[in-house]
Amino acid sequence: MNEFEIEKLSEILGLGYEKVGEGIESGTLKKEETHYRIEKRWAGYPKGTVIFGNDELILGFPKIRRAMVLDPTIKRHFEDTSSIAIEEKMNGYNVRVVSIDGDIWAFTRGGLSCPYTTHRAKEELDLSFFDKYPNLVLCGEMVGPDNPYVPKTIYNVGSIEFFIFDIMEKKTGDKLSVEERREIVDSFDLTGTPLINICDPVNGQDAAKKIIRKLNNENREGVVIKDVRSDVEPIKYTTPSSNRSDLRFAYRYFYDYGSDFLHSRTVREAFQSEEWEEDTEELEERAKKLGMSILEPMRKTIKDKKEERVIAEKVSIKISDIKVAEKFRSHLKGQGIEFEFTGFNELEDGCYRFEIDKIYRPTNDKTNSILGGGLW
Amino acid sequence: MNEFEIEKLSEILGLGYEKVGEGIESGTLKKEETHYRIEKRWAGYPKGTVIFGNDELILGFPKIRRAMVLDPTIKRHFEDTSSIAIEEKMNGYNVRVVSIDGDIWAFTRGGLSCPYTTHRAKEELDLSFFDKYPNLVLCGEMVGPDNPYVPKTIYNVGSIEFFIFDIMEKKTGDKLSVEERREIVDSFDLTGTPLINICDPVNGQDAAKKIIRKLNNENREGVVIKDVRSDVEPIKYTTPSSNRSDLRFAYRYFYDYGSDFLHSRTVREAFQSEEWEEDTEELEERAKKLGMSILEPMRKTIKDKKEERVIAEKVSIKISDIKVAEKFRSHLKGQGIEFEFTGFNELEDGCYRFEIDKIYRPTNDKTNSILGGGLW
Repeated sequence: MNEFEIEKLSEILGLGYEKVGEGIESGTLKKEETHYRIEKRWAGYPKGTVIFGNDELILGFPKIRRAMVLDPTIKRHFEDTSSIAIEEKMNGYNVRVVSIDGDIWAFTRGGLSCPYTTHRAKEELDLSFFDKYPNLVLCGEMVGPDNPYVPKTIYNVGSIEFFIFDIMEKKTGDKLSVEERREIVDSFDLTGTPLINICDPVNGQDAAKKIIRKLNNENREGVVIKDVRSDVEPIKYTTPSSNRSDLRFAYRYFYDYGSDFLHSRTVREAFQSEEWEEDTEELEERAKKLGMSILEPMRKTIKDKKEERVIAEKVSIKISDIKVAEKFRSHLKGQGIEFEFTGFNELEDGCYRFEIDKIYRPTNDKTNSILGGGLW
Repeated sequence: MNEFEIEKLSEILGLGYEKVGEGIESGTLKKEETHYRIEKRWAGYPKGTVIFGNDELILGFPKIRRAMVLDPTIKRHFEDTSSIAIEEKMNGYNVRVVSIDGDIWAFTRGGLSCPYTTHRAKEELDLSFFDKYPNLVLCGEMVGPDNPYVPKTIYNVGSIEFFIFDIMEKKTGDKLSVEERREIVDSFDLTGTPLINICDPVNGQDAAKKIIRKLNNENREGVVIKDVRSDVEPIKYTTPSSNRSDLRFAYRYFYDYGSDFLHSRTVREAFQSEEWEEDTEELEERAKKLGMSILEPMRKTIKDKKEERVIAEKVSIKISDIKVAEKFRSHLKGQGIEFEFTGFNELEDGCYRFEIDKIYRPTNDKTNSILGGGLW
């Protein structure tokens, strides 16, 4: 770390030399190979903010807060809003794609630059967008089975697709209005997240409830409710099937996932059950599903360990350039993820699909220990 | 804090002057009105260790570790043990009663001296024990409906009863053998925790399983399995009904109780279900019960808040001396517990029963906020 760098960071962030020094010292302002990133909210900057080269600042994507009940949350939260848009919240990972000096970069939520995501973003997106809007960030969900972070087959996506849910300004984080964004998305060869409804905030709760029920039946994640003008921060609400799918995942790897993950999801279930005025029968049905999404994946894990199988998540990446595999491998390694590249196929379209096992070491070790007579 | 005190502590604990200073500085070695206590494991001393007056040291009661599966845990853990005792683990709170210069003191797990527990211990216990054994500590579970910490009506106890599960030496924490302890308990007017079985460690898993099934049907907590000679540390194992009863409690006060509490209990359920080789039907039944013990109490809480009731736990104390009420009130206050003494009755036996509401403020406030449209 030389003084020149601190000075530059200080200038770009508009913070004192000393403050920047503290950020670096504490590890919050973190140096990566290609850029700096802010690891968690700090000095007014959101988590995932990226500082790049001589003068590029790309704000982190702000956390979207959660409604626990639809009524009265929607009408209260949007009481000064003329109109709200209900868009589908898709289940993948949040990516910001930007152009920096003509190069395309894809950043994860935390501000890491992922070589696989960047590779796929370059192929999937209509990059002429950045010729016209070099100061804008495409914020979207990377969704599909070849998503190595959150692989999902519930969407009609063959490999991976990038659904844009926001367009924001690099330096300010200001978001375009829903209408502007959708017009721009349509004017390029880009895909937006499904817009399901636009309505008056007072009608939001009924509209959202209907949508959530439908999405729930399709095992989809939920909705983000937005001020059409993007003046008020959006809020989210998820389906019970998505909560339970999260639980199934967390309990498959029960010693890797934190207990907060579980707690927040069970609390949602209870508020929803109460808001939906479920009777005893419906409550029991929900209870059984909730219980099964906790017990079943854990029993599978225990059984697998008894039969000496490794507890690992099978994910894949699909790439047209085989060199990206090596870069992605380094990327996973750099994050301390234990994994194994188990094989690859050349596909009909000339691309390669690499199969990767993500190994959940603590769950493997703890389960083994317990089965061998170890104490908790 | 004067130098004289540090010197005395240093002498009693056998630690350097500086080390004692650090303990006090960090708050681990904590001064109470009447004594010092060690708040969490430190310098080799267990949590709850008490230092009293000029030369009294009462070691904290050691944490009992948990078996997650009975087989092979029992036979492995006790492989060098000739014989194990399976005793009932009762559900109340862990108390150590000692005589210090002829006065009786009852300490909680954390090393606090509880005026109510002390009052009741003096009345319930055969104090002649301490004339004969001034250097021994009676370790027991305070159980019953007038237990203001863990009130339970599942035992055939009218108000409160003190079940002795260990007798240990003040300064060393050395425990008597199971036989010695039970002989001493029988030779005084004292009550021991139920001894259910004594067997060879290799038969422990079958014996314990049978016992656990029976205790489960009676909604009792579980067992502690001990080396009859007290050379090997004991282990515990609990019934599913006790896990679920804990969950019901934690979810009634969902914003006060930590998520770790939940996680550890659901993990136990899965290991038990697998060890007991439950089929789909049994698993579904367990899942439903698990889910209900999460959802039902939380729905009750939400409903109560909707109808503007305060979320509080109703507990009671029964005392023969009305002045103890005031002391207990200060004791609760000193621990930062929010409560309300809602009334008292004079009983036929001349005693008083005070009703106390323990108010769970975070749960009240968070539920109110959510119902009013607040975000998570």
